[in-house]
Amino acid sequence: MEAFSDGVFSIAATLLVLDIALHPPGSPLEQLRSAWPAYFGYLVSFLTIGAAWLAHSAMTDRLKGADSLLLRINLVLLLVIAFLPFPTKLVAEALHDTNGERVFVTVYGITLLTIRFLGFALDAYARHEHLYEGGPAGEELQAERREIWPTLGAYVTAILIGLALPMLAVALYFAVAVFLVLPWRDLRLVIRHS
Amino acid sequence: MEAFSDGVFSIAATLLVLDIALHPPGSPLEQLRSAWPAYFGYLVSFLTIGAAWLAHSAMTDRLKGADSLLLRINLVLLLVIAFLPFPTKLVAEALHDTNGERVFVTVYGITLLTIRFLGFALDAYARHEHLYEGGPAGEELQAERREIWPTLGAYVTAILIGLALPMLAVALYFAVAVFLVLPWRDLRLVIRHS
Amino acid sequence: MEAFSDGVFSIAATLLVLDIALHPPGSPLEQLRSAWPAYFGYLVSFLTIGAAWLAHSAMTDRLKGADSLLLRINLVLLLVIAFLPFPTKLVAEALHDTNGERVFVTVYGITLLTIRFLGFALDAYARHEHLYEGGPAGEELQAERREIWPTLGAYVTAILIGLALPMLAVALYFAVAVFLVLPWRDLRLVIRHS
Amino acid sequence: MEAFSDGVFSIAATLLVLDIALHPPGSPLEQLRSAWPAYFGYLVSFLTIGAAWLAHSAMTDRLKGADSLLLRINLVLLLVIAFLPFPTKLVAEALHDTNGERVFVTVYGITLLTIRFLGFALDAYARHEHLYEGGPAGEELQAERREIWPTLGAYVTAILIGLALPMLAVALYFAVAVFLVLPWRDLRLVIRHS
Repeated sequence: MEAFSDGVFSIAATLLVLDIALHPPGSPLEQLRSAWPAYFGYLVSFLTIGAAWLAHSAMTDRLKGADSLLLRINLVLLLVIAFLPFPTKLVAEALHDTNGERVFVTVYGITLLTIRFLGFALDAYARHEHLYEGGPAGEELQAERREIWPTLGAYVTAILIGLALPMLAVALYFAVAVFLVLPWRDLRLVIRHS
Repeated sequence: MEAFSDGVFSIAATLLVLDIALHPPGSPLEQLRSAWPAYFGYLVSFLTIGAAWLAHSAMTDRLKGADSLLLRINLVLLLVIAFLPFPTKLVAEALHDTNGERVFVTVYGITLLTIRFLGFALDAYARHEHLYEGGPAGEELQAERREIWPTLGAYVTAILIGLALPMLAVALYFAVAVFLVLPWRDLRLVIRHS
Repeated sequence: MEAFSDGVFSIAATLLVLDIALHPPGSPLEQLRSAWPAYFGYLVSFLTIGAAWLAHSAMTDRLKGADSLLLRINLVLLLVIAFLPFPTKLVAEALHDTNGERVFVTVYGITLLTIRFLGFALDAYARHEHLYEGGPAGEELQAERREIWPTLGAYVTAILIGLALPMLAVALYFAVAVFLVLPWRDLRLVIRHS
Repeated sequence: MEAFSDGVFSIAATLLVLDIALHPPGSPLEQLRSAWPAYFGYLVSFLTIGAAWLAHSAMTDRLKGADSLLLRINLVLLLVIAFLPFPTKLVAEALHDTNGERVFVTVYGITLLTIRFLGFALDAYARHEHLYEGGPAGEELQAERREIWPTLGAYVTAILIGLALPMLAVALYFAVAVFLVLPWRDLRLVIRHS
């Protein structure tokens, strides 16, 4: 389960770069600048996949085994992860084109929400079926669980905001991705030390 | 054998997303809607690769070793798995274009049938050459073996139907993929429990 | 070394499918038929990568360790493996266009020859530096070594032939790939048994 | 951490080939020749990723464990590695188009510098937090550390030179990549032996 999952996570993350392209005409510098939505989409999607992988990997490290339902929930999660480069491309193009913005940003948000929700469902199922090894969960996994409701709430809020203000929604998706990736616990330790 | 195979399975599954594209003109919402054959093709192909991977992985987990013929049958299976994004793209475009539908849907069906058949051949060869560890096969592998003839039959039927009604054939390929991925045994247990 | 190498082998093999595309106009069936050079290129390149992977994997299984020169020769081999999708695309297009045929088929042949040669260099270096575990080499690796000079000779011959008859050269590359992948030893055993 | 990282390294390296394309019109030979910046970009980027992977792999081999900050620094490194195919494509096109050269070559250089710097930051953090196993570092890792300041200096110099002479900068990036990949220690041994 891990090799196939790690494969899909890393390939989906790396394929995101194919969504970045320059659109002539314009001077090279102007073209580079006007492609900022593509860089931004790359950043948000890469960090979201990265965060999902960190959570997934903290989870699988503690699994005793996998039953067949767990493998299937995992497969659906991977299906959505592997789909992410498509809405990312939509968003990259959407921010150029005010018409498409709202629809595309909404599709993007729903995809991000689904990834987070399925990651949570995977963990909840594994706990319910006692598929984890005994002993306390690692801190990474505990942080994951504490953060699930605020995160899902933030995504739903951002999706609703995006219906009126798509740009703000994308900024919120970025904020959530950064929040998920930042190791708050360690940063707190660092601050306490200093 | 496993790292290379898992690599091909996960890359082929993830490359499927590159087959999804919007075709202007039309409002963003219309473009998104009219791309439904691409989403559908992505879903069917991803689930088919997922099912093939579940079977493959249930198989390799129980192998004592691999002889050189097994490695070669595996290579041919991977050759067809890695080819799947191409007929998937054909189907995604075919459903827009009634002319191409029949031919492209048939090519797609034959590819799916071949994947299933080669997965079965791999297992049959390993059994024949006593390459498995002793003891009973896992339930995943047993379910796989029970389902092989109905599945191959369903594919052949769908291919023949597709010569007249290509849309129905694609719906059948979807049904087979869902059937293969659904963990019937566990669902029965869940129902018995409730 | 193995995870990165297996990654490059499986990704390069799977990316080959992106080189296959239909070229309108024409009926769907005509388009499918006229893309045969693309299928053929896919087949030859996939089998060549498959054969290189089989040899590579038979080799790495018996390595005690890797020194830094071995890692570098390996990196150059991977550089050429990862490059193969490009000349494969050239050949796919070349066979449509008689002008380009000779040049593109020659580039393709030189790439295939280089892959084979670097695989051999890797094994020769590992033997020279005593990087293998003691005991006799596996049959896969022994077959590999017996076949190296005939194979390199066949590639050089095919490249020279391709300067006059590019189509025949591609047929020869296919023959070499099939020869490399076929498990002659096992087939002999099968025939002796019957 | 290793499977996901090795995945991103090998996929980014292999995706580079998609940046190579011929641009008609012109005879096949002319087209092949005029695509030299694409081959050159492929070579420099592949070797740079290869060198980063060699360093990364020498590092992870000696890690006792990974804390959450290390995983995050690693994620940022992978984000830049996975981004590299985009500036590589820019450089491949830049060398045709004198207007774009300077800007695109600068973006490329900054990406290469960032990869090198983040690889160094990862190692520095692991040392600072005592995440390595006891005993002396391997020679690969020691060479890595000795080379870090000259390498970063060479990149900064090349970026500055590139503002006036972009072609020379690309030649310097190539020189750095070759320098990083060449196993100087072993070559010295080889020379001392002869």
